[in-house]
Amino acid sequence: MNTFSVKAFGTEAPEAALNQMQIDRREVTANDVEIDILYCGVCHSDLHTARNEWGGTIYPNVPGHEIVGKVSKIGTEVTKYKIGDLVGVGCLVDSCRTCDSCREGLEQYCENGNVQTYNGQDKHLHHQTFGGYSERIVVDQDFVLKIPSNLNLAGTAPLLCAGITTYSPLKHWKVGPGKKVGIVGIGGLGHMGVKIAKAMGAHTVVITTSASKIADAKRLGADEVILSTDREQMQKNAGTLHFILDCVSAQHDINAYLSLLRRDGSLTLVGAPEHPLPVAAFSLIPGRKSFSGSMIGGIKETQEMLDFCGQHDITSDIEMIRMEQINGAYERLLKGDVKYRFVIDMASLKEN
Amino acid sequence: MNTFSVKAFGTEAPEAALNQMQIDRREVTANDVEIDILYCGVCHSDLHTARNEWGGTIYPNVPGHEIVGKVSKIGTEVTKYKIGDLVGVGCLVDSCRTCDSCREGLEQYCENGNVQTYNGQDKHLHHQTFGGYSERIVVDQDFVLKIPSNLNLAGTAPLLCAGITTYSPLKHWKVGPGKKVGIVGIGGLGHMGVKIAKAMGAHTVVITTSASKIADAKRLGADEVILSTDREQMQKNAGTLHFILDCVSAQHDINAYLSLLRRDGSLTLVGAPEHPLPVAAFSLIPGRKSFSGSMIGGIKETQEMLDFCGQHDITSDIEMIRMEQINGAYERLLKGDVKYRFVIDMASLKEN
Repeated sequence: MNTFSVKAFGTEAPEAALNQMQIDRREVTANDVEIDILYCGVCHSDLHTARNEWGGTIYPNVPGHEIVGKVSKIGTEVTKYKIGDLVGVGCLVDSCRTCDSCREGLEQYCENGNVQTYNGQDKHLHHQTFGGYSERIVVDQDFVLKIPSNLNLAGTAPLLCAGITTYSPLKHWKVGPGKKVGIVGIGGLGHMGVKIAKAMGAHTVVITTSASKIADAKRLGADEVILSTDREQMQKNAGTLHFILDCVSAQHDINAYLSLLRRDGSLTLVGAPEHPLPVAAFSLIPGRKSFSGSMIGGIKETQEMLDFCGQHDITSDIEMIRMEQINGAYERLLKGDVKYRFVIDMASLKEN
Repeated sequence: MNTFSVKAFGTEAPEAALNQMQIDRREVTANDVEIDILYCGVCHSDLHTARNEWGGTIYPNVPGHEIVGKVSKIGTEVTKYKIGDLVGVGCLVDSCRTCDSCREGLEQYCENGNVQTYNGQDKHLHHQTFGGYSERIVVDQDFVLKIPSNLNLAGTAPLLCAGITTYSPLKHWKVGPGKKVGIVGIGGLGHMGVKIAKAMGAHTVVITTSASKIADAKRLGADEVILSTDREQMQKNAGTLHFILDCVSAQHDINAYLSLLRRDGSLTLVGAPEHPLPVAAFSLIPGRKSFSGSMIGGIKETQEMLDFCGQHDITSDIEMIRMEQINGAYERLLKGDVKYRFVIDMASLKEN
């Protein structure tokens, strides 16, 4: 298979800093789209994978799955995109396409193992996949998304992971007008959750441990803020929420949040705390409540989310960085010191 | 309010044995049905409450909420029952009747606090309610159930709690033909779960830690048995079940059972382990799975369950005891030494 070399930023070992390297991309095959990457969001998963914190990282590792760019080349069978189109790539670049989940458009739950954008099993080159911290990427047209033309392009990059990760469960659990929805954890994921839940028409309640976040929660669109450290506020709001989107990846007391749910409500985890979370039987049984999880979204739903964000003019709040600032950005990410997503201006990689 | 005295069996303190006592019942008011109790099932909640293991027990305590008997008197406005009818009473004898849950027929989730059959707040006599370990009970007709005439009466008593507690979640989570359903924990609740899931048309899989229960699980109706201590069997069955009804009230590893669920499956707890159960985020997120709870059922659904059991000739497997054997029965219950429910022959109380 013909390949070409592109500049990328990645790491050779868990404890090593990210630095510039060359990686191979395949020449477009019949159904492929080659994308000139303009912006790439920085997701906490990038850091977890670069540092092998979940295990299983194959080195070298090139992170990045919040990719927007411009089509620079297309294969002979490509019908969905043409050169110059603004497109996006999220967490997935392929899947089996034949299992029940894939046929239902839920490629994120592919039963035979989908191909993740980085640290996945590249079906063409038979080594690990390399992500968006690179000049260009080549992706099958079926896993490429259209970017609405009205949106700020850099602010759109985080929609490809943080946007769909929050949109999909809000949609699945039927958030909308007449529903009271809680969002826990106002970071990269949570701030998107607030914007999307509000745009879906729900009464949106931010639940935070920190009084300093109240003003910003309201700016993002929250109708109400509950300070979870205030026992009185928590008691007053017990049994009031139809759904809670839990975006916290640190350890936290799930039972306190479950108490805020109404009967038949679900608290859905999209952040992934490292250690198991203790759940009391009596947090679930008396109100037939659920504690559940949700993972990104399928390709069709990701397009739906992008179109929804286009209609409602929703993008991520971002801080733009240059490629060579990525190691410092990771350190700031660990401290929660970003409002609310770093996005890499990929022009900075091309200049070097 | 006029009252009359009946013999009962109850306890005066957490550490005291149960013994015979006299309690007051109200004379029937307009909407009341007086029931001559024939059989009363012995639920683990009886023991928890008698010994104040959940806190909040008011003494004297007379347990028993799996009651079947014969109507012996009716109030002037009673239209649903006549003297001599075979009837049942479960965990609830009243509720607010005005909240959303009550209006939806979900009195078990009454938002203003329902009245439990024992250790509840008696609306008429303004002291704690007394349960079925007694000669007679007086209950509003709206909380009295009809017993199908074809069923063995003693074996029907446990349907009033164990039956509805398993029927309600199986129905709510849409168990039926084409669904593969796991039942964990084959005791008072679980053995009813197996019978009901099978009668609903589901492929019913018992999951047990004990090879000695395999034959009995199949006798109860299980299509398959998974031995949860056998790692190979657990791995082979990963991702195969649509729903799991978890009837275990001891501590157990929820994550191992969650791994058996298919995408969008729910594991629903009806047993109530004392300590919180640790749940890993990655047990829920990759398959959009839920860990949930369910509590008994509403009055309308309890009648539906009784009618369903009548149609399918389902009763509980029981061991009949005399009233004075109750303290020994509690000790055996603690050891799981009963197949599968003790039922008290209330004639034994009347004789003394």
